[in-house]
Amino acid sequence: MEDIANRLNVSKGTVSKALSGAPDVSETLRKAVLETAVEMGYSRIQRKKDAKCLCVFVENMLYLQQSDFGYDLIMGFRKMAEPAGFSVEVVELDRKLQREIPYDEYMLRQNYVGALFLGLSLSDEWINQLRTSRTPAVLYDNYIQNSPHTTFVGIDSSEGMNLAIDHLEKLGHQKIGYLSSALGSYVYQTRYSAFLRAIRRHDPHWDESLFGSALHTSECVQKHLPRLLEKGVTGILCSHDLLASAAMLHSQELGLRVPEDISVIGFDDLPLCACTAPPMTTVRQDRQELGKSAFYAMSSQLGGTPISTLLLHAKLVVRSSTGPAAAGR
Amino acid sequence: MEDIANRLNVSKGTVSKALSGAPDVSETLRKAVLETAVEMGYSRIQRKKDAKCLCVFVENMLYLQQSDFGYDLIMGFRKMAEPAGFSVEVVELDRKLQREIPYDEYMLRQNYVGALFLGLSLSDEWINQLRTSRTPAVLYDNYIQNSPHTTFVGIDSSEGMNLAIDHLEKLGHQKIGYLSSALGSYVYQTRYSAFLRAIRRHDPHWDESLFGSALHTSECVQKHLPRLLEKGVTGILCSHDLLASAAMLHSQELGLRVPEDISVIGFDDLPLCACTAPPMTTVRQDRQELGKSAFYAMSSQLGGTPISTLLLHAKLVVRSSTGPAAAGR
Repeated sequence: MEDIANRLNVSKGTVSKALSGAPDVSETLRKAVLETAVEMGYSRIQRKKDAKCLCVFVENMLYLQQSDFGYDLIMGFRKMAEPAGFSVEVVELDRKLQREIPYDEYMLRQNYVGALFLGLSLSDEWINQLRTSRTPAVLYDNYIQNSPHTTFVGIDSSEGMNLAIDHLEKLGHQKIGYLSSALGSYVYQTRYSAFLRAIRRHDPHWDESLFGSALHTSECVQKHLPRLLEKGVTGILCSHDLLASAAMLHSQELGLRVPEDISVIGFDDLPLCACTAPPMTTVRQDRQELGKSAFYAMSSQLGGTPISTLLLHAKLVVRSSTGPAAAGR
Repeated sequence: MEDIANRLNVSKGTVSKALSGAPDVSETLRKAVLETAVEMGYSRIQRKKDAKCLCVFVENMLYLQQSDFGYDLIMGFRKMAEPAGFSVEVVELDRKLQREIPYDEYMLRQNYVGALFLGLSLSDEWINQLRTSRTPAVLYDNYIQNSPHTTFVGIDSSEGMNLAIDHLEKLGHQKIGYLSSALGSYVYQTRYSAFLRAIRRHDPHWDESLFGSALHTSECVQKHLPRLLEKGVTGILCSHDLLASAAMLHSQELGLRVPEDISVIGFDDLPLCACTAPPMTTVRQDRQELGKSAFYAMSSQLGGTPISTLLLHAKLVVRSSTGPAAAGR
């Protein structure tokens, strides 16, 4: 705690308060303390002797530090878990760890009663072990077929895509394109199939030539955006906000105005969406609520009610990256 | 209470205990009391002055009395709702009521803070009003697109169908048929598409000639079963237990043995499944847990976390209506 206090230039008492969730510490400071604590080996600080311990696996600590997404989700999770008598530890889910030790053995050794996974990918070693494990696991945006002790928590992608497409249709858009990260992960597969169902309700003849995907954001935009524009697309949905942000920038580089010439919609509502030029219309996932729901799913499993899937309602946040369809294009 | 006591030949005190959920009243007696209370206008008995009131709409009281399904679900719901300070009233959802009074007005007049719907069908008058209503509604086995204040609660049909098909595959079945009630309701649509996804993972060439549906159970079995048998089907999945039970009986009437000649799997695990000859293998929905989850979804909505979908894990209950595939057929 002293190290964290020194690093942040606050008192040791403040750090202690922030870690224990005292109400007189601001959310910003709590976040800074948590962030620093994670960097410095948070797990060793937090655990109380009598508390049952839950583990949050994050795919990549760096990612966690760069984006508010994971933090807010973990915050929501902790806000519910700690008053219920659990302590929560954050652990990096690296491939080496997964090769070295089987999942159940790791959980047992560390004395974790359950795990929340942020960013487990389909190629992770432990994903198959989760099918047979009896330790409750909650997976953010991941569904593992036939694994009775895992819960998939996320938002209703179908609803999100419907809202986005309804919005574009009302603005007069006829040709709508879709850009996506590589379809190798469950979340992007789900969003694309949700998009397909939604677009085909509006336009039964929509065909995949208005779709483009690639592993990296810049590659995806540079490879596919000009092609979609040439085909007369006036509205583009993107599988996530960073891609939408890149699509907006690249459109502007190509001399187009957003939204006058091209409307762009993201997915997630990361904080950056309020700061893009123009501010981005996007499908919102409430990160704190996702974290809270993840804890509910966890406690429900621990209590013997095995939830398979828990999806929150999606919301469309309309900002300025969408407008009436350009008549001329 | 006196009328119920007289009808059931127990004391008024016992009825009062049963209605208030006292632990020294057996589940069987509580059920009988609730059943009688519903018949006699339960809603007038139950409400306490200070309690917030939730409403359970049931499509058909008669159905509720004939099957344990609704009762167990309502029991699970009440078990959670009442300790949390809610009173629960059961109301028949008839078409006349829906034509006479808009949903929101009804809820307001009756002072209900939320509703659980059992058996709302796609043709019900109120289903469109639920899209715009701000009163939290939880729908058992029903999903209404783009309605931010409704939650769909059910079981994971995909998982159920996968478990059933995996089971038949392990027993050596190659040709698997599917019988269903008419696909006019959300639940049967969902089960059929879950079946399709599951069967095509095992047999990409499965075609719809091995599928049959009809409005009534007997009609469905008589029309389609002989056809499926002629095509060499050795295993049949049914959209629900009553249909599976009819399929077993009709197979036996046609001179076939279950499971030696034909394996049959139901869906729901109604109490009857343990009593069919032979006892039925079926996909289980835990009715009490569904009721409990429905209450969680309700309280989550009331607390401002809008859940879209909550699915429980499915289980396969293996009894004796399934066995190794007949080699000769």
